[in-house]
Amino acid sequence: MMPIINPPCALRPLLSVLMLSNIRNTRIEWYQCDPAGIIFYPRYFEIFDTSTTMLIERALGMTKLEYLKVYDFTGHPVVETRGRFRLPTRFGDELAIETALVECGRSSFKIEHRLTKAGVLAAEGFETRVWVVRREDDPKRIRSQPIPPEVLARFNQARI
Amino acid sequence: MMPIINPPCALRPLLSVLMLSNIRNTRIEWYQCDPAGIIFYPRYFEIFDTSTTMLIERALGMTKLEYLKVYDFTGHPVVETRGRFRLPTRFGDELAIETALVECGRSSFKIEHRLTKAGVLAAEGFETRVWVVRREDDPKRIRSQPIPPEVLARFNQARI
Amino acid sequence: MMPIINPPCALRPLLSVLMLSNIRNTRIEWYQCDPAGIIFYPRYFEIFDTSTTMLIERALGMTKLEYLKVYDFTGHPVVETRGRFRLPTRFGDELAIETALVECGRSSFKIEHRLTKAGVLAAEGFETRVWVVRREDDPKRIRSQPIPPEVLARFNQARI
Amino acid sequence: MMPIINPPCALRPLLSVLMLSNIRNTRIEWYQCDPAGIIFYPRYFEIFDTSTTMLIERALGMTKLEYLKVYDFTGHPVVETRGRFRLPTRFGDELAIETALVECGRSSFKIEHRLTKAGVLAAEGFETRVWVVRREDDPKRIRSQPIPPEVLARFNQARI
Repeated sequence: MMPIINPPCALRPLLSVLMLSNIRNTRIEWYQCDPAGIIFYPRYFEIFDTSTTMLIERALGMTKLEYLKVYDFTGHPVVETRGRFRLPTRFGDELAIETALVECGRSSFKIEHRLTKAGVLAAEGFETRVWVVRREDDPKRIRSQPIPPEVLARFNQARI
Repeated sequence: MMPIINPPCALRPLLSVLMLSNIRNTRIEWYQCDPAGIIFYPRYFEIFDTSTTMLIERALGMTKLEYLKVYDFTGHPVVETRGRFRLPTRFGDELAIETALVECGRSSFKIEHRLTKAGVLAAEGFETRVWVVRREDDPKRIRSQPIPPEVLARFNQARI
Repeated sequence: MMPIINPPCALRPLLSVLMLSNIRNTRIEWYQCDPAGIIFYPRYFEIFDTSTTMLIERALGMTKLEYLKVYDFTGHPVVETRGRFRLPTRFGDELAIETALVECGRSSFKIEHRLTKAGVLAAEGFETRVWVVRREDDPKRIRSQPIPPEVLARFNQARI
Repeated sequence: MMPIINPPCALRPLLSVLMLSNIRNTRIEWYQCDPAGIIFYPRYFEIFDTSTTMLIERALGMTKLEYLKVYDFTGHPVVETRGRFRLPTRFGDELAIETALVECGRSSFKIEHRLTKAGVLAAEGFETRVWVVRREDDPKRIRSQPIPPEVLARFNQARI
């Protein structure tokens, strides 16, 4: 399950406006914060995961439940991720999350997230995900598989 | 709040056995897994956070509740983290987590986690944390502060 | 910390429209679901908690961060709760949550939540919360305290 | 999915020592606590869920992954639950959780949890769960199904 990113399609665009991207807003809630009164950082990864789903849903014009079924796969788990947390955020803070597909390979793709509070960068996330299916020989295990051509086309069409 | 790691004390030891380190075991539970049946990756960061707490508790000989009080600080939030997830883990899997302090600066330190399943590397985590206190001018905000000398001494004594 | 609900102000209104209440919408996300593909039920309580916060914020015209400060208290933890889960909900499901204050006593109050999917009742929550402050003799412990008169007035004004 | 508890097998034993039960220990961690510094109550339900799994694993002599496969079912979701939280618990607190099967019907069963801190009751949980399978006509939906006789026998053998 060690993906190699070899980007036939992926040359990072000069202008981010050309990438597949999405912006959404969220509010940090009490249940996401720890005894220091600030967000507990793993919650950022929950926020990033939802943002990635929304980006793919938008690219494919389907909900995740639908696209898992239509393309008959198990999911797009993260194999590598990185987060930088620059400003503490607290319950009640309103955040904007900008999410972009920055690279895609044969069976993996890279996503970046920028989370801002009142226009100021609060956190960043970087993730590599792999397109996986259940193994025929052992349905309890998963393996990577090429991203379907229609999906690749959708992932790239925003970046002509 | 952008920490600079300048390690007066920190030269990474040649032998990891000299580092402050800890091993603990945990079992992945149903509530940590997602509809693909595998652990939802932000849960790894919850596991890493608990492992870091246990490492510091062991170094200082106190619980976190106690050491926050004794050293009168707010916590050691993560400012940067990275995770690599090599093997999917599932509910019921028994894991070992090895956690080590690999570098420490004036007000920040770096921790690494290695999570193995039956001896095989399943996930790795890398984190930079900062020692923070509440700001006098605004108790709702936090700022970094030098790690107390006694703590530094404890962090380093395992690495003579 | 065993609250007694003695409702001077609380006679449950004949018409629910007279109660302090709120409706909000949310979408169930992947990170809230378990290997059976449905929401993991403790996540409903996270949703209910956020709904209670929003109800109180609306009643008081302040965010939770603000009202904790203005009324100088620690929070309104749940001392008793009940949930009934009638329909499984799944990632992608759009839900409406109706939340109402149904009773209030001297230092405690009761909240009910009704969660519907496409107009059909999917889950219900019932909770008793207590207004608490830190103890003077031991700031690490909490104790119940009368709800401030202005807050009671706001809680009741919707129900004249 | 509205279960009716009609207990052919279930007459609540006179002596709780005769019930299927289990005790385990856990420590409350930072990630389970909220800005008030105490456990965020939905985390109790995560703890209860894990305790129920461990009880059933012990009764059946298999892990959950195994028993879901052996009995070919989807899970035992909670349809109704109640919690009473008597003492606030905090990060670092060591808790004991006693879990018992108190009633079982044709396709549902009831579990109780008692969580103690230094011997003092801190929280209680009550839950009704249903044995469910995927529907043949729509594998995305679930329906209740009779608990297999071998499982019933195991659930009851502790209570002769």
